[in-house]
This record gives sequence, C-alpha cells and structure tokens, in this order.
Amino acid sequence: MTLKEDTINLHRILKGKIEISSRIASDNIFENEKGALSSIYTPGVAYVSQEIAKNKELAYEYTSKWNNIAIICDGTRVLGLGDIGPEGALPVMEGKSVLFKTLANVNAFPLCISIKNKEEIIKFVKSIEPSFGAINIEDIESPKVLEIVEILQREMSIPVFHDDRHGTAVITLAALINALRIVNKERADIKVVIAGAGSAGYGIYKIINQAGFKDIIVLDKDGAIYEGRDRDIDHKMSNMSNNELGSYPVIKQFNSFKREIALNTNKQKIKGDIATSIENADVFIGTSGMGHLLNTKMIERMNKDPIVFALSNPVPEILPSEAISAGASIVATGRSDFPNQINNAVVFPAMFRALLDLRMKNLNEEILIAVSESIADLIDMKHLTNTYIIPKINDPRLLPVVTKSVKKYIINQQISQSR
Amino acid sequence: MTLKEDTINLHRILKGKIEISSRIASDNIFENEKGALSSIYTPGVAYVSQEIAKNKELAYEYTSKWNNIAIICDGTRVLGLGDIGPEGALPVMEGKSVLFKTLANVNAFPLCISIKNKEEIIKFVKSIEPSFGAINIEDIESPKVLEIVEILQREMSIPVFHDDRHGTAVITLAALINALRIVNKERADIKVVIAGAGSAGYGIYKIINQAGFKDIIVLDKDGAIYEGRDRDIDHKMSNMSNNELGSYPVIKQFNSFKREIALNTNKQKIKGDIATSIENADVFIGTSGMGHLLNTKMIERMNKDPIVFALSNPVPEILPSEAISAGASIVATGRSDFPNQINNAVVFPAMFRALLDLRMKNLNEEILIAVSESIADLIDMKHLTNTYIIPKINDPRLLPVVTKSVKKYIINQQISQSR
Repeated sequence: MTLKEDTINLHRILKGKIEISSRIASDNIFENEKGALSSIYTPGVAYVSQEIAKNKELAYEYTSKWNNIAIICDGTRVLGLGDIGPEGALPVMEGKSVLFKTLANVNAFPLCISIKNKEEIIKFVKSIEPSFGAINIEDIESPKVLEIVEILQREMSIPVFHDDRHGTAVITLAALINALRIVNKERADIKVVIAGAGSAGYGIYKIINQAGFKDIIVLDKDGAIYEGRDRDIDHKMSNMSNNELGSYPVIKQFNSFKREIALNTNKQKIKGDIATSIENADVFIGTSGMGHLLNTKMIERMNKDPIVFALSNPVPEILPSEAISAGASIVATGRSDFPNQINNAVVFPAMFRALLDLRMKNLNEEILIAVSESIADLIDMKHLTNTYIIPKINDPRLLPVVTKSVKKYIINQQISQSR
Repeated sequence: MTLKEDTINLHRILKGKIEISSRIASDNIFENEKGALSSIYTPGVAYVSQEIAKNKELAYEYTSKWNNIAIICDGTRVLGLGDIGPEGALPVMEGKSVLFKTLANVNAFPLCISIKNKEEIIKFVKSIEPSFGAINIEDIESPKVLEIVEILQREMSIPVFHDDRHGTAVITLAALINALRIVNKERADIKVVIAGAGSAGYGIYKIINQAGFKDIIVLDKDGAIYEGRDRDIDHKMSNMSNNELGSYPVIKQFNSFKREIALNTNKQKIKGDIATSIENADVFIGTSGMGHLLNTKMIERMNKDPIVFALSNPVPEILPSEAISAGASIVATGRSDFPNQINNAVVFPAMFRALLDLRMKNLNEEILIAVSESIADLIDMKHLTNTYIIPKINDPRLLPVVTKSVKKYIINQQISQSR
C-alpha cells in the first residue's frame, strides 16, 4: 500500500486520533451512594467553584487548566497545502495533539475555527483564556498571524506560542549550530540566505539575527528584501511592458515585519532573485513554499561546504540528492523520509511542557536561542555527522533539557532584575 | 471529613478531572522509521487533509469531530451560585465532561469563556463549528441564553442543546409522568405551578404545555405571569408608597419568552405570589433559585396527594422532610443527598450520544417528550414508588432507550414527510 492509502485507512479505522478521558474510574464514581459523584459533580463541586471564584489562581490547582493548551487554526495555511479550510486542518491538529500528549503529557485541544478576520481571531483566542494554560497558534496565513500573535502576547496573561514562527526558528537554529560545527565555520563570519518571509522565514531571520549572524539576506516573492525596496519604483519594473505595469502595484508597501527585516539585513542592498542573492552564501534556508526553487547551479555559486536547509513541504526547494550532487556538505529538509528532518515537532511538545510548568509568560528571542542551543548540545561532537545534526522527535532528553534551559533563563533574568 | 474537605482534596490531588488522550500507542508511533508517525502527522496526514478539503463531510469519518462536543459556559449562572466567572465554572464543566465520557463515551471539552455579550457568544460558538459534532450550552444566565440558543439552533448545522432548558425539561417531565402514575392523576386534569421563569422554568413550561398539561401557572420574581401583566400598571403598585414607586419600573416589559408563557398559561389570569397561585395546585415545580420559597402552609393548600419538585440548588424551595410533614405525596429535589434527584445528568450523556450518532439537527419539544416518556417507562409499575420515580444517572438502560426513541422519532418524521 502507498503512504496515502495507509494513512487514509488508519484515519478511517481510528475515527479520531485523540479523545477526552476521565481521570476517575467509573467504579469510583458510582460505586454506591457514597461514590465520588457528589464531589466530582453537584453538590460538592460547588465548593471548588466558590474557592476559584474567590481566587482565580486556584483554577491551576483544581482543574486541568495548568495542563490544557488550545491549538488554534483557521485553516488558511495548512502544511504546504495553503487555504484548505478549518475542517481540512483537523487531522493535522489532531496529529499535533497526539505528539503533545505522547511526548510531553500536554492536553492539546484542536480548535479549528471558521473565522479568518484578524480582529475576530484575536477576540476569539482572548475569550478562551480561562480554560487554558497556554495557546499554540498553528497554520494561519502570514502576515496576519504575525500581527495576531504580537497582540495576543501583549494582551493575554498566558503564554502564546506561534509554532510556525517560534518552533521552526528554534529547531532551525539548533540544526544550524550543529551544521556549522561540522563545517567548522563561525556564525559571525558567514552569509545566510533565507528564501521566504512568512511566519517561518521571519522567525528564522529574527532568531539568527539575535544569535549573532551578521550577514543575512531574506527573499520574498519579489526578490531580495532591502531597505528602501518599498520606495524603489524601479524595482522589478524596468523590463516590464506597459501592459504589465498597469496591473503592477507601483509601490509594494512593506508590512512592519518586512520593514524590520529590511532594516536589519542585507546591508549591501543586494537586489534581485535567489540566483543573485545566493552568490557566496554559506547557508541557504528555504521556507518559500516553492518546490524546486533552487537548482544545482545556484549551489555551485555558494561558498565552500554549502549548508542547504530546503524546508518547504511537501516539495523542498531542492531534493537532497540534487543538492549533494552539486556539492552541498549538509542537507536538511522538513520531511521525515530524508535525513535531518527539521521539524518543529522536536520543539513544541517539550517547549509547552516548560511553558506550562514554569508559567513562563514572555517569550522572546533570547529564551528561544537558549532552547536552540540546549537542543543542539544534545548531540555531542562524537555523534555529530552530516546526516545527524538534530535529535529525533522522540529523543527522551528533549523534555528535561528544554525545561532546564527555560528555567535557567528565568532564574538569570530574576537575578539580573534583582541587582 | 466533610463533603467540602473531601471535594477540595480530591480536586487538589487530581489537578483536573479530564485529560486528552492519544488513541495510538506511543510504541506504534515511533517504533522504527516505518512507525505511524508519517501517517499521523506530516507528510502522510496531508492526504487526509486534502480529502476533507474536497468534502467537509469526511471530517466526520477521519477525525474525532463525530464524537466531539463543546460545553460552552460564560460563568454567569453556575449551579445555584450565580455569576462566579468562567474560571469558577471550570470544575463543574469538567465534572460534566467526566459524566459525558463515562456514561456515553462522548468527548466533551469545556470552553469556559470570558465574553458575556450575547452577540459575541453567538459569534464564538458559530466559529468553532468545524471542530465539533454538537454544542452543549451550560450555565449561562437567562433570558440571554434562551435567545442565544434559538439563534444558534437556526444558524448552525450541528445540534445545539441547552442543558439547563432541554435537559431539565426532559428529566422533570419524566419524573412528573411517573409521579402522576403513582397518585393516579391525568395530566389534562391537574394544575401545575412552576416557580421560576429562567432557562429551567421556561423549558419545563414549554415541554409540559406541549405534552398536554392544561392548567399551568408560571411565576417569576414579580409573581404569577399572566397575559397583560406587562401592561398592567396596577400590578404590584397599589400598595406602594411614592418613594417605592419612584424606583419601580412602571411597566415591566415581557421578553419574548415570558410573553409566550403569558399567552399559553394562566388562562384565569391569577395574580399574585406563590401563596395565591398554589391554591388547589396538584404539582409544584421549583426552579426559582430561592431556597425556602415554599412553606408547609402553602402545601396544605394544594389538592390531595401533592407533588412537590423543589429543584433549586443548593437550597431547595422546601426541604423534603418539611414537605412530607405538610402532606406532600411525592417529593423530588435536584440534590443527590435526597431521594428522587431530578438531575439533567440522567439526560445529557445519553441525549448527546443519540444526537451525535444520528446527526439529529433539529431539537423540538416533540422529540424531547418522546425521550421523557422513554426514560419514565424505564421504571415499571412494579418498581415505581414515591421515592423511586426516576432512573439513576448510571442506569445502563438509558443509552439504548434514549437513542431508540430519537431514532424512532426521526423515522416517523421521515415517513410522514414522504407521504
């Protein structure tokens, strides 16, 4: 059977990969007149409700709020499939829920919603805060989602994690740290090209910029992003016919995220497409959603020992075999059927375990970098190879190590604040 | 230990009465490179998503949507505790979730929300439709909630059940049917007084009116509801001082639900409080939220073999011992520590099992009556006693019997439509 047949059969048989379970055995609830029913439910439960009403914090003690997260998705950018609707997103989110539970004992409930408007989604997520200990935002189109998450992080009192941005950034940096160890290069000396400026591309730019990478170029559909491109009328238009010009938006405004990228990257203001930008690059990171964007000629123009992370799914920017034939030293994809799967599933279960257990509210790049480094360090130099630069999703060391690095960060922060 | 101590201890130890479980064993997910991971999650799951994107109906086949319900509560009217906030509602809703799973294998996820505005709640509930097979509305204040449910039932394509209204109505009618069997009275010949015109009171009026009870009086805080009361300036005002009159809203408008009650009950336009209304009544049903509303003198004014359902929680309108001392023939409360607990937990698990399995969209009083009758019939005349008029919550016959009666109703409806 093919993977498609296998997968559809499995889903048909299971009819749902997750379920809600009672933590009290049926016998204990109903065993006799003195069973737990009157404590679990009315009238006894009213005492618990009253205690929580007096002190909302007790919801973390007396209910599953401490361990509940919502996976929020509007279905607009599911996997590499685009806008397939909230129902189409359900099996993916149930899959994430399985990983959350299996790997980190987190109760993750998928809420695939039929609203797509930014303000409505913000209102929706804020309104569910009483029931959850944290929020995971998944597979919502950018730049809408970047704005949504910024606002939610500011206005909610529980942690809000954006898997496509934060999760991808953490695992990509971890992989990059180890790849650089193998080729023996320093982050400050190398040139990184990121194709794609959506949630993943923005998140990766943001984390590596903060982590000390100096020479970064990010490309979107219109080519390399540079400061002033949004005012540069000549950009892309010089060779256009009048007809094309008529339909072309003369000035493509940057959203605030692209403006930030423009201000912090590409100091030489390199213009043009990927073929131009990749000249003398040491690292290519693809989050473009465009299969086969890269060809062997482009890799040949990169510096010695090229590192190629072709992360788009299902079709990567270049197939590993091609990249290697063109001289790539280390190749990673987002797929499980090639070595070095850069998958945020390595990150999100352990990350949420830490966020929930430590009630860590404010995510920032510093803490994400600390987590990246701790994940990278799980593979010591002895075991590090070109085809093993990141731990497996089910590496049992992930949970303690991620929690430890978040905890260390919190303690350091408190020490520096108390000085 | 007291019930309070017992209950708080249990909740402290459990830290949540429910959890989300994976339906796939961890070993099967990660056993080797060919484990189920690539089917559960990316890349394989994309095939399932694409199938659902083409045909949303398949979400019922390939995900847990078929068995997922949301318990929606804004915390404004929790148990008999009033507006204790959404966090305070959480342990109650988790308790309901335990009963849903234990008694009917339904996945019920509590969504206690921080929005209270009618339109916002409607928007919220509509937006989660992709993830759920049905909606259960719980412990939201009336009349807001009655309007919310009417609109949701009209505008959503999954069933919307209002436990405080529908669930309470079904179990109260079931108890009433059996109580009348014991005292040997006919529903068409008797007088029923309902104290309380909120969700429960409205629901009970609605179902018994449709079920053939002819003489019904419903009271709210301002006394007996009768046609014209909202225009009757003299009502309640004749004995007021000028001072009192100044603060009294001269004409108390009926909302649409009270107007409906006024049009369909109290044909004699009896005015006044409970003491007046209860004269010659055969049945008293209390959903007033007011403990000790009823006294023994009032019961003494009722007809022979009075039936007293004092359903308010935690303090009933009259204690069973008092009611019996005053001559009540059959007494029921909402509490588990007295005989004859009229609790909608007898109804909602089996009801949702039926709604989900049969994809029953349109709830109406006819189908609710059919369910009531099937529940009443579970106790045959041989077993029926003054202290056993309704089945226990965990009676295993509830599930098949409720499903059967819903199914029968659907088939009859289809037959009559095809004629």
